[in-house]
Amino acid sequence: MGVCCRHCMQGPCRIDPFGEGPQRGICGADADTMVARGLARAVAGGTASHSGHARHVAHVLKKALLGGAPDYAVRDKKKLEAVANRLGIETLGRSAQDIGLDVAEKALAEFGDNDNALAWAATTMTKGRLEAFSKLGIVPTSIDGSVAEVMHRTTYGVDAEPVNILLAALKCALADYAACHMAADLSDILFGTPQPVVSRANLGVIKENAVNIALHGHNPLLSDIIAQVASEPELIAAAKEAGAAGGLNVVGICCTGNEVMMRHGIPLATSSLSQETAIMTGALDAMVVDYQCIMPAVATAAECFHTKIITTMPVAKLPGAEHVAFSDDKAADCARAILLKGIANFKNRCPDKLCIPSISSAVIAGFSAEAIIAALSKVNAEDPLKPLIDSIVAGKIRGICLFAGCNSVKTPQDRNYIEMVKLLLAENVLILATGCAASAYARHGFMTSEATKQYAGAGLAAVLTTVGEAAGLGGPLPPVLHMGSCVDNARPVDVAVAVAERLGVDLSQLPVVASAPEAVTEKAVAIGTWAVAAGLPVHLGIAPPVLGSVVVTKTLTSTVSELLGGYFLTQVVTYNIVFSMP
Amino acid sequence: MGVCCRHCMQGPCRIDPFGEGPQRGICGADADTMVARGLARAVAGGTASHSGHARHVAHVLKKALLGGAPDYAVRDKKKLEAVANRLGIETLGRSAQDIGLDVAEKALAEFGDNDNALAWAATTMTKGRLEAFSKLGIVPTSIDGSVAEVMHRTTYGVDAEPVNILLAALKCALADYAACHMAADLSDILFGTPQPVVSRANLGVIKENAVNIALHGHNPLLSDIIAQVASEPELIAAAKEAGAAGGLNVVGICCTGNEVMMRHGIPLATSSLSQETAIMTGALDAMVVDYQCIMPAVATAAECFHTKIITTMPVAKLPGAEHVAFSDDKAADCARAILLKGIANFKNRCPDKLCIPSISSAVIAGFSAEAIIAALSKVNAEDPLKPLIDSIVAGKIRGICLFAGCNSVKTPQDRNYIEMVKLLLAENVLILATGCAASAYARHGFMTSEATKQYAGAGLAAVLTTVGEAAGLGGPLPPVLHMGSCVDNARPVDVAVAVAERLGVDLSQLPVVASAPEAVTEKAVAIGTWAVAAGLPVHLGIAPPVLGSVVVTKTLTSTVSELLGGYFLTQVVTYNIVFSMP
Repeated sequence: MGVCCRHCMQGPCRIDPFGEGPQRGICGADADTMVARGLARAVAGGTASHSGHARHVAHVLKKALLGGAPDYAVRDKKKLEAVANRLGIETLGRSAQDIGLDVAEKALAEFGDNDNALAWAATTMTKGRLEAFSKLGIVPTSIDGSVAEVMHRTTYGVDAEPVNILLAALKCALADYAACHMAADLSDILFGTPQPVVSRANLGVIKENAVNIALHGHNPLLSDIIAQVASEPELIAAAKEAGAAGGLNVVGICCTGNEVMMRHGIPLATSSLSQETAIMTGALDAMVVDYQCIMPAVATAAECFHTKIITTMPVAKLPGAEHVAFSDDKAADCARAILLKGIANFKNRCPDKLCIPSISSAVIAGFSAEAIIAALSKVNAEDPLKPLIDSIVAGKIRGICLFAGCNSVKTPQDRNYIEMVKLLLAENVLILATGCAASAYARHGFMTSEATKQYAGAGLAAVLTTVGEAAGLGGPLPPVLHMGSCVDNARPVDVAVAVAERLGVDLSQLPVVASAPEAVTEKAVAIGTWAVAAGLPVHLGIAPPVLGSVVVTKTLTSTVSELLGGYFLTQVVTYNIVFSMP
Repeated sequence: MGVCCRHCMQGPCRIDPFGEGPQRGICGADADTMVARGLARAVAGGTASHSGHARHVAHVLKKALLGGAPDYAVRDKKKLEAVANRLGIETLGRSAQDIGLDVAEKALAEFGDNDNALAWAATTMTKGRLEAFSKLGIVPTSIDGSVAEVMHRTTYGVDAEPVNILLAALKCALADYAACHMAADLSDILFGTPQPVVSRANLGVIKENAVNIALHGHNPLLSDIIAQVASEPELIAAAKEAGAAGGLNVVGICCTGNEVMMRHGIPLATSSLSQETAIMTGALDAMVVDYQCIMPAVATAAECFHTKIITTMPVAKLPGAEHVAFSDDKAADCARAILLKGIANFKNRCPDKLCIPSISSAVIAGFSAEAIIAALSKVNAEDPLKPLIDSIVAGKIRGICLFAGCNSVKTPQDRNYIEMVKLLLAENVLILATGCAASAYARHGFMTSEATKQYAGAGLAAVLTTVGEAAGLGGPLPPVLHMGSCVDNARPVDVAVAVAERLGVDLSQLPVVASAPEAVTEKAVAIGTWAVAAGLPVHLGIAPPVLGSVVVTKTLTSTVSELLGGYFLTQVVTYNIVFSMP
């Protein structure tokens, strides 16, 4: 319930939330202060993660343009120009290199001490939002600075006023939003903006007769290069020589899986919570990880199988794993060396342990904001958003729900996602999904034209059919649009902002909601918090550790909506006690 | 013992450190991973605090030089030039304004994304240290970035290798060192480098017949201005008019108290752990706080007395306190308004509750590195460090011990400080003290010439007498030198680095140790960690929450010494189990 504090060495101090034990810590902090501090630190952890990812991509973009990372280049000049124009960087008559360097420098400057609002937040939100943020004093001016500010304010003897602390958390969460947007933008520039692509998802994509290499984590910097080199004839030949008639089979796990599926059609084996199950097929020859959501447990699971766990990033090592230091100046060579390790490990498979569930679903992924608008423009080239807006106004689409977040051991995997989406689709709610939500819907067959026919209400199905057929899919769009990994949660915001600006309203006035029905990570806490700041009602299927404070819980579920339009709502079963909030 | 993890929403996960319960969290993280992550986050919290303080001073310095903060100015041009020269900023023939702006810009740049080592670390450490840091990959290049990196690496599914995590903590701690040094440097530039000053310490400095205003927290930005305006005749007259024949009596608490004692001779009422006792005298008319170590409990204590608690900083509010927003563009007016609030509150005193212990000790404070070297230069103007070095070589001084850190409820206040210092002084160990350590020795009479006669061994006493008399004190230097607040822990490093460079050795080769016998805060964890990185054996009287991990405990108490020379040592009694480490 968030009522244990370890922010100094006099504790741990624990509040008894049911009223019979201590009500204050040794310094006098009460449950409200402790809960607010804990929540703010979770937001800081999430923001640091997304921004660590974004900074990494920005550094590589800069290095590539300066010639130090030859395996990277600006692959999507149109996106580069769009981003630069949005940031106020001159593009006319300039080379991709010059524009790109300016964008990279602008990105890296977002981490430092600035006087003005973060460009990646200020240029991507509605005017109404920015005014609301300014009024509350929560406009972030530095990504790293916002993380550090939360850490300062939540240490012993600094901020004790719970609502003041929550404002710091909101500001930090908006820095998280900027970082997410930056990561998605810069990845598109380096690797291409996702476009609809057909693939498959679930453990059945692992092939018994091929060398199977799983790419797991979040950042495309290494995994996209692996996806590129995996089709090289020499590597395929090496796999065959090693005895794998089916050659080399690269599969994805978690959000790295989403990244390479969106851009390369690489099939998705599974998602974060079930990452060990890929090892348990007995057919995974290597699991290559970057960072975030890599359970230390994979090394333990791999002890019982032949799978080689390969860590690649200096900031994320695992006891029991082999570390191959990724160097962006020799990215392709590094990628090949890693694949060869997997190929060499094929011979160590134990046939008795092979057990690949023959389950997989077709998936249409890759619905970036650009891809969605391109599809809509096939219906109305002049005013692409009109068909969507008209459908909402006419009641054919009742609203839009973004599913995001993780899978948690606190609920049977995917259950909350699947139960909710069936109800919402029948009610003609269009679904967008990212991260492990996207993976869940991919694995359960919700990202196909058939799913529209099976699950969507009549109004929604009609719209999806019109757009899908106009876009040349030969059938309806899927009822759940795969918008990418969890760092890609800024993509749906782009669509919502475009709609809001087209209508001349603010985000909080749109029939858009978000849900993280199985949230786990601090990143999810950060995303959920900025989604509230963006004006969305945000459903959580698992309560964050805030229920120990009435003040914090009320602020998050009620008061904040008066200030920002958005708010959290949750219904949770924990320890057999039902907490129900308005 | 550090074996509870709340870094995701699947937990809390708890390890049973005694072997009969769970040994791993739900993600597979074991006690080693959990303990390392928790410790790294504590370092991040500490670094964020010191650097929040440093950034604040840097912003005000810049604003002052640009004309936006007229009550501030460069008060110590010599210090400004020394800092600028050290940083490689041109000073010859340049105005204080131009030099100061360059220094402020350089300071603010330390918070952003840089390619090179932090200037405030790289220019203030020995070459040997920098080589050792470089070898371990722990050279910090960004203050905020180091905090964010720790937060990223310690979130769900990122770094799980305990030693790798500890390296991140060391890097972050070195960023903390840079921030501490920056805060001290810039405060000296704005408010003057401390010089020996005589004052008094303990609750007896509160006066029954005066309006008593306590300045509490850490940052001199507001408190130094209050100290300046408190002598204005209008304010003294107002206090007398309000019925206080003794006029206006400003006293210090905690490190803000150290700051104003060092620079203005303002008496120190008490320190952090006993902050409520100042209220309990019944004679404290206002407690003005900035940030850090302000217990929320002061507001509760004040409910029983008439004391007005005034918070002043946007990042540190307290439920039950009055908030007066400090604005650096009208600092003196703001300071006067706050003093008037205290004066107006004098009439609300309840005579029945007056109880001021008539205890206070004389103190000589203000031993900045510059002040110590100036005193030594009275003995040898050519080679000021020679008397100190000769005394150490001759065995008159057996070594130097820096006492730092807090007071903890886990031990009777000051007991560890006092017992240790008596033994060490008798053994001819020269004592430096900062923060609550300095406050403890100030209150207990260890900062006087008499204390040297009473406690120092013959060798040490002879040296202190020679230097003190040469410096015109008319007696020995105190045996415990007050070097400032806790953010001033970089000052003793300056002295040690000067000695090391004079001898051509590294810091780890000097007979210098540090001790935090009653440590509490995350700031103390950060300082202790960089002191170890600086090559010092660091004694802790209270174990940080690491004992749940043998790997982390061994690394901190043993392995690290092979890499850096420094290490932690501790002997603690917790829960009636004695943990004794080599």
